Amino acid sequence: MNVNGTPTRTIWLAEDGQTVKIIDQTRLPFDFEIAQLDTVASAARAITSMQVRGAPLIGATAAYGMALAMAADTSDAALQSAYDMLLATRPTASNLRWALDDMRTTLSPLEANARRAAAHERARRIADEDVEICRQIGIHGLALFKDLASKKKDGPINVLTHCNAGWLATVDWGTAMAPIYMAHDKGIDVHVWVDETRPRNQGSFLTAWELGHHGVPHTVIADNVGGHLMQHGQVDLCITGTDHTAASGDIANKIGTYLKALAAHDNDVPFYVALPSPTIDWTITDGIADIPIEQRDAVELKEVRGRTNAGTLETVSIIAPGSNAANYAFDVTPARLVTGFITERGIAEASREGLLGLYPERRA
Amino acid sequence: MNVNGTPTRTIWLAEDGQTVKIIDQTRLPFDFEIAQLDTVASAARAITSMQVRGAPLIGATAAYGMALAMAADTSDAALQSAYDMLLATRPTASNLRWALDDMRTTLSPLEANARRAAAHERARRIADEDVEICRQIGIHGLALFKDLASKKKDGPINVLTHCNAGWLATVDWGTAMAPIYMAHDKGIDVHVWVDETRPRNQGSFLTAWELGHHGVPHTVIADNVGGHLMQHGQVDLCITGTDHTAASGDIANKIGTYLKALAAHDNDVPFYVALPSPTIDWTITDGIADIPIEQRDAVELKEVRGRTNAGTLETVSIIAPGSNAANYAFDVTPARLVTGFITERGIAEASREGLLGLYPERRA
Repeated sequence: MNVNGTPTRTIWLAEDGQTVKIIDQTRLPFDFEIAQLDTVASAARAITSMQVRGAPLIGATAAYGMALAMAADTSDAALQSAYDMLLATRPTASNLRWALDDMRTTLSPLEANARRAAAHERARRIADEDVEICRQIGIHGLALFKDLASKKKDGPINVLTHCNAGWLATVDWGTAMAPIYMAHDKGIDVHVWVDETRPRNQGSFLTAWELGHHGVPHTVIADNVGGHLMQHGQVDLCITGTDHTAASGDIANKIGTYLKALAAHDNDVPFYVALPSPTIDWTITDGIADIPIEQRDAVELKEVRGRTNAGTLETVSIIAPGSNAANYAFDVTPARLVTGFITERGIAEASREGLLGLYPERRA
Repeated sequence: MNVNGTPTRTIWLAEDGQTVKIIDQTRLPFDFEIAQLDTVASAARAITSMQVRGAPLIGATAAYGMALAMAADTSDAALQSAYDMLLATRPTASNLRWALDDMRTTLSPLEANARRAAAHERARRIADEDVEICRQIGIHGLALFKDLASKKKDGPINVLTHCNAGWLATVDWGTAMAPIYMAHDKGIDVHVWVDETRPRNQGSFLTAWELGHHGVPHTVIADNVGGHLMQHGQVDLCITGTDHTAASGDIANKIGTYLKALAAHDNDVPFYVALPSPTIDWTITDGIADIPIEQRDAVELKEVRGRTNAGTLETVSIIAPGSNAANYAFDVTPARLVTGFITERGIAEASREGLLGLYPERRA
């Protein structure tokens, strides 16, 4: 998507064909800076420091990290060491393990002197495949916008989204945001309500930044606002991403997603979840009971970083001194509240049967 | 309630019997400072600058403002001028007009030389009556805690509240918080989940400060978290306040209240609304259609004030540069989601019939 008018990805191979460049997302939204990854260690640091985040982008960064390792040393020992170092960065990220396994499976059988070129090629392909999956999600989701546009007499299609499931979380396009970009690029009048997404503010920091640079009209709102807007007909469609999708259709996504799904259900607003099929966990049948919910450091709620009038970045405490806080990172939205899934193969009902209709190879 | 171990009100007459003291709530939660009101103009400024906030406290401050006016000049002209100046401070606050009308009706018929003492006496009585109403709400709400405590095998009664309907919004006790303080003071093991309440952070700033000083165990959470906690049995009871109560039982309260009520309903968690009967608008039958929702300056969402590590207060921007924001201040929770009202006369079903059962004098 566009940054300052230039089509940009979150990760790419530099012109020298060796080093890897990323958008340093820890500097967003106040500064747009490109960071360079020269070694597997710098790729690992980029993941742990959250210069890159979002499951698909973490996977692509890990793949490029393996390529950087091979550029320095193509031995079996180097291959294993790079795998271990990168896997340790975010142990619960499923795309991370998937990308690393893919790289190792590709590279292990090769002669050492063939690994360097093969690693670069494979990493590039993993990144390109992610772009293609997201583009397909966008194409399938576009149908929803065309349908809404044909019914709506005037004004934009108002979409509400939560957190950041945009191109910054992937290599390009994003998941929940892909249909929005696709609709906007096709000339459909779209306006996005951007949930701030406390406590890490991915909405006001990342989603708003993305939409602004790509020229998509949007308005940031407090997480508390969506229900009111839906009561008053101000939301035509909700689309969110998912971190973990149960085969039953329950989804775990950023904390607060469940509240928006309840409001959508209460006001007959369609609530769609966009997902690349690798996020489906075919072993889980009860999302609320079986998807573990990460509790993160309460400091994320107690403090916030922002820009002062003087232009410097400053972290401030925003809680009564002495009070405790708790920071649950995700919640589970039961399938009964989800209108449908937008996947790279099409739109499915949020149920085992719906998913199996698109992924028949998963039938036992 | 207690501040640093000392029972404290939000407004009181100083020892000189003339000047009025208030907690300067714009300094909370980082500094506890007492401000002095010497003139009607200083009382008006305290309201407009939000040194005092919360409908009942605004009413009491206006009443004391009239008393300060009479201390300087007991003429008819001074009476009307004080009335006009104070009414203009927050034109939509219903308690403000009510308190001013009460003061004017009391003072107008009196000889000028009797007005000074009468004004002080009447203002003190308005403040004391507010305390008594809140105390009665606390006593009636306490029954809910006793009932829950008798059923719960172990662990505290977990209450979730939104925004600040605590003693800082009234003269003492608060509305939603009165039953919580009452239960805590009676030795019932209570723990409060405090919604941060974006964008003005009344939860993490005011409710957490109140509870901390009074020694009530509590944990601040992002507004996004309540649904997850309810799904997992971590909330026994929700209690909020209301800014505007329709005779039908619909309530308008701080933005986001509706989302918590939806989650409570979805998880069979009782959802109570505490209210002094003057907030009931007997003319409104459809809260969603007929209660106007204030949109406030988006800067409240775009910026936040907090304390730096160096101990200074700093305001920082927390939104992508160039992005717009919208700031809806309230939402409406329909009566069907409200388990009951806790009023100064007892607990009622959230319906016209329920309210008329407690306030039979309102039957046409």
